[in-house]
Order: sequence, then C-alpha cells, then structure tokens
Amino acid sequence: MTVLILTCEEDVTADMVVVHLNASGVPVVRLDPADLTHSVALSGEFAHGSFRGHLSSGGRLVSIGGLRSVWVRRPGGAATRAARPSAWLTEESAQALYGMLRGCGARWMNQPDAAHRARYKPWQLRLAQECGLPVPATLITTFPRAAREFAERYPDLVVKPVSGAHPQDPPLAVPTSRVPPEADFSAVAHGPTLLQRRVAKRADVRLTVVGDRLLAARRTALTGRDPEEVDVRFSSSGEPWRPAQVPQRVAEAVLAYMRGARLAYGAFDFAEDGDGTWWFLECNQSGQFGFVEVDTGQPIARTIAEWLARPGGTEQAADGADPAVVG
Amino acid sequence: MTVLILTCEEDVTADMVVVHLNASGVPVVRLDPADLTHSVALSGEFAHGSFRGHLSSGGRLVSIGGLRSVWVRRPGGAATRAARPSAWLTEESAQALYGMLRGCGARWMNQPDAAHRARYKPWQLRLAQECGLPVPATLITTFPRAAREFAERYPDLVVKPVSGAHPQDPPLAVPTSRVPPEADFSAVAHGPTLLQRRVAKRADVRLTVVGDRLLAARRTALTGRDPEEVDVRFSSSGEPWRPAQVPQRVAEAVLAYMRGARLAYGAFDFAEDGDGTWWFLECNQSGQFGFVEVDTGQPIARTIAEWLARPGGTEQAADGADPAVVG
Repeated sequence: MTVLILTCEEDVTADMVVVHLNASGVPVVRLDPADLTHSVALSGEFAHGSFRGHLSSGGRLVSIGGLRSVWVRRPGGAATRAARPSAWLTEESAQALYGMLRGCGARWMNQPDAAHRARYKPWQLRLAQECGLPVPATLITTFPRAAREFAERYPDLVVKPVSGAHPQDPPLAVPTSRVPPEADFSAVAHGPTLLQRRVAKRADVRLTVVGDRLLAARRTALTGRDPEEVDVRFSSSGEPWRPAQVPQRVAEAVLAYMRGARLAYGAFDFAEDGDGTWWFLECNQSGQFGFVEVDTGQPIARTIAEWLARPGGTEQAADGADPAVVG
Repeated sequence: MTVLILTCEEDVTADMVVVHLNASGVPVVRLDPADLTHSVALSGEFAHGSFRGHLSSGGRLVSIGGLRSVWVRRPGGAATRAARPSAWLTEESAQALYGMLRGCGARWMNQPDAAHRARYKPWQLRLAQECGLPVPATLITTFPRAAREFAERYPDLVVKPVSGAHPQDPPLAVPTSRVPPEADFSAVAHGPTLLQRRVAKRADVRLTVVGDRLLAARRTALTGRDPEEVDVRFSSSGEPWRPAQVPQRVAEAVLAYMRGARLAYGAFDFAEDGDGTWWFLECNQSGQFGFVEVDTGQPIARTIAEWLARPGGTEQAADGADPAVVG
C-alpha cells in the first residue's frame, strides 16, 4: 500500500515528511499534477462493475486501488507544464486525475471537498462557535450602518479580508489592521468588510492538528511592541515559538471542529488574552508547519508521516459519500 | 420561512418554479449574486456564540436563519455586475455570501460541495457502479497502448470529453463521437481521453430526480438514423419525449446514487439497449428539465417547488458537517 503525495517539486516541507516515510520503509510516490501528459500519466478502466486505475510518474507505476493515503500538499495546476498547455487540457486532466482519485478508498489529508469548504471564513467562525470555541465578535457586512453600529458596541476593532487570503499571495496581500476611531464606513457598501473585536493578546498560539494529535506552540507577545502591529504573519518578533499545553476544553472543541469539518490536518491560530483564554482566529487546512517544527522541535512532520503510513482501509467514506449507502 | 433562489435574471426555468411557489403562498427571495454591492447586500454578525445574518435584494430583507431552503440554479459570479468589478471583489463577495449561507440550517438543492463533486465524470462512473447501475465499459487514459488494447476488446467505441462539459459552453463544445476502426491512438499521450463502449440503443432515457421523486422520460431512437450521430444533445430527432416507467432495480440504484452523492436534484441520462437495459451515461446535478416538462407534461417544476417549500428543519447537516458532532 503506497502513500501518494501531490505537490510541486520545490516543496521542501514535503521533503521533511518523505524522509520519515522512507525511513519507515513505506512506499511513496510523489508527483506534481502539473507534469501530467509530460512525465506523469494516468489510466483507469471501468468495466464489469469495478474500477482499475494506475498512475505513472517518472516511470514508476502505482495502482490507484493500492493507495493507502493521499496527501494533497501544494500541487500545481493539472498539466500546466505540458508541451502545449491550455485551459481545456487543465480541465480535462484535473477531472481525470481527481475524478479517479476521489473514487479510491484511500484516506485523504485533506479530502478535496472538505479542504475547499474549510477555506470559507464565515463557515469557520460558525463551526468554531458551534464547537464551543470562543470567537471574537465579528461582523461581515456591506451595510455601512451595520458597520457603524458594530463599531459603537466594540470600539477596538481590526479589519481583515473575508477570504482570509494569505499574504504569500501577492495580489491579495491585505494584512489585518486596526480600525482607527471615528473611521468612515461608507466604503463598506462597495465590498464585504470583515470587522472583528481586537483581542488584547499576551501570546499567539498555533495549534497544529494531525488526525487526533494536537501539537500546540505559543509565542509571547512582546511588551512595548507597536500596538498597530496585529498580524503575526507580518511581524518580525524575536520571540521563538515554544511548545504549549492545550487546555482540555480547547482540545475537545478543536477535535469536534476537525470532525465537523472532516479534516485530517488543520493549523489553528488563536490569540491568548490576559485571562489565558484562547480566541479562535482561523483554521488553515493547508497551513505551513515547518517554522513551528524548527522553533519547537515538535515532531509534526513525523506525525504526518505516521498518519499517512497507517495501514489501509477507509476510516470514513474517503470521498465523502455515505458509507452506509455506497459499498 | 423563506425559499432563496440564486439565479440570473434571464433564467426562465426558475420562473416556472417561482410560479408554483407563489401559488402556494410560500415566501420567495430570488437574487443573483452578480448584483452584490449593487442591488444585493449582506450582513452577518458572529457574537456571543451565535450567528445572525441577513440578505437584502431590491429592498427586501431576509434573515439567513429564516431560510427553509436554498436553490442554486444558475447564479452569476459574485459581484460581477458591481460598479467596479474585480477578481478580488468577486472572491471576497463569494466568500462572504456562500460562507454565511453554508452555515445556515436550510436544505440545499444542491449543496455546493456535493454539486462540485458531482461534476467529476470518473467519480460518477464509480458511484454508479457501486450503486449497481450498468455502466458501459469505459477507459480514461493517457497511455496510447491502453487505448489500443481497449479498442481491441471493445471495437465499437465512442469518444467524449472527460470533463463532460456541456455543448452549451462554446469553447468546450466537444460532442460524443464514434471512434473509427483502425484509429490511431498516439495522440492520447497528449491529453486524457475517454473511450466508452457504444450502446446500440433503441431509446434515450432522461430520468429527473427531485428528492425521492423519480420522473422518467423516454425518446425512441429513430430507425434509419445516421449511425454516426450518437450525442442526443446535438440531434434534431423529431421524436418527442414521453413519460416512462422506471424499473424497480433502477429506481433503487438511482436513489442510492442520490444519497451517496448527497444530491437533492439530478438529471440522469441513460441509453436503453435492445434488451431494455438502461445504461448509465451521466448524472448532471444542474441538468435542464424544461424541455422534458414541455414534451411530457410531467410536473417537474411543481415537484421542485414542493421540495423547496417543505417546512424547515435540517434533514441532514445542510453544510455537510457531521450532525452528531456539530450542533
């Protein structure tokens, strides 16, 4: 039973996981869907009521039925490095590859539909609330009057993009910023705006979840730091990340979130306030973990490798279909 | 409790359903996400562990918590008709709108993640097989040798796009075509190719499923018709669609498919062979039904209206989250 890793060549974080998989002797095939029709090929036959499929990468052939897990890390667009790339070829290739893989019985980190849904910030906030995680009061609106009323009730606000686009995407680089007092909210009518009560935090928390394993890291907020600087992703704090204990209530709520979201991997960001409460900010289903592992020495890559290497069998319907119905 | 219909203004098929909803006195709000920040506005507040959200369209305000159902028909891209449209505004608006709606308890026709997944043709074929529907032998491949071997085993083949793109999308207009004997398959290496055993059919069957209601229509294949013409979507057959009985085994398999795919609406295409067997070709989760209703007089629009109007309450987790966990 093979582990399939879908990612680009330059992904060094995947290298960290592959090292552990190789050490444990588990077969691994790593490929980038961008190489389809170039060095990656596929074939699948539906006949006599069953399916037999294969992938080949760099001359290695792997049976789709023989996959124990699929790790969707940082895959390129399907067939984008083909000799004659086109939107049509990308669509056809993505349909063929992911359409076949979706039907296989392997465990996913993360299943593509769950991963897609998990990106919706309003949906994240709702699920976090339902799981009992404290969520800072948040408004998403195109009504200037609603924004003004919210700012009266919660005078200390930050504004951030609704789509939670990561600053690593240059065209969408909008960091979280504080809202000045007496702000003019009339422009809210021209685009949905996310306003959130600012948490006066004493630490940032990054909680990495791999299956049912929780690995928390905490970084103390610098005293005397520029109070305008609220987005840790942009800050150059000299403080290192240190391993942290997860409060029991948070652990239970986070595991409920993972089950509700059907995720096998998630990187949660919390702001810890002066009372020690962890306020949910977001859960990034494809969040980086290399920097935490480097700072804390926590074995995140090894934990991912162990999850991927677990012997076969579908724990829940791998494609999200109801297991009681299909099978 | 209101029915929300997301579709464009020129969608006359939605009009057919709205007529029935209006007649039954159920409140309906119809809006096009393309009009966001123009004549459509939204607002949602997450505070004290709960969510309160509203949509407004043409001055009418509707509570998101008060939605009984959401029909995703033919919505335009979010905010594409705004005063200053941009990819960023569309992304932010789509995240805000669908992110809030995903968290609501309404029933969906169809839930967006289920709808997305349901478009993958290889996944459709696998699910159809698993539900016991007869599927014509099919190969999807980039290996020329695999294509040649398949053509030796099944000499009478058709070729069609993997993505099942509908011919109504002009740039992707690739009808299903017969594969000539002695075809040269070397170009298969440049793009995934879907080959399927041709069903010698005596009729086309369109089975429209609304919830657990099955409405089948059948159209006799013309004898003496051009044997090269296999794609009914392009044919100009003079035969009308007529109501048909659904064989019990097919009915059970189709309902299993709908449950496995988590769809509330699906338009199945079958080819009926000389033995009366219905061969599964595809299930289009957003397939048109107006032409069937016109020919057969079957009450499809009314059945959809009845499904949408059913009194509130989430039957299954509306957003796909595990109901045992979230709530």
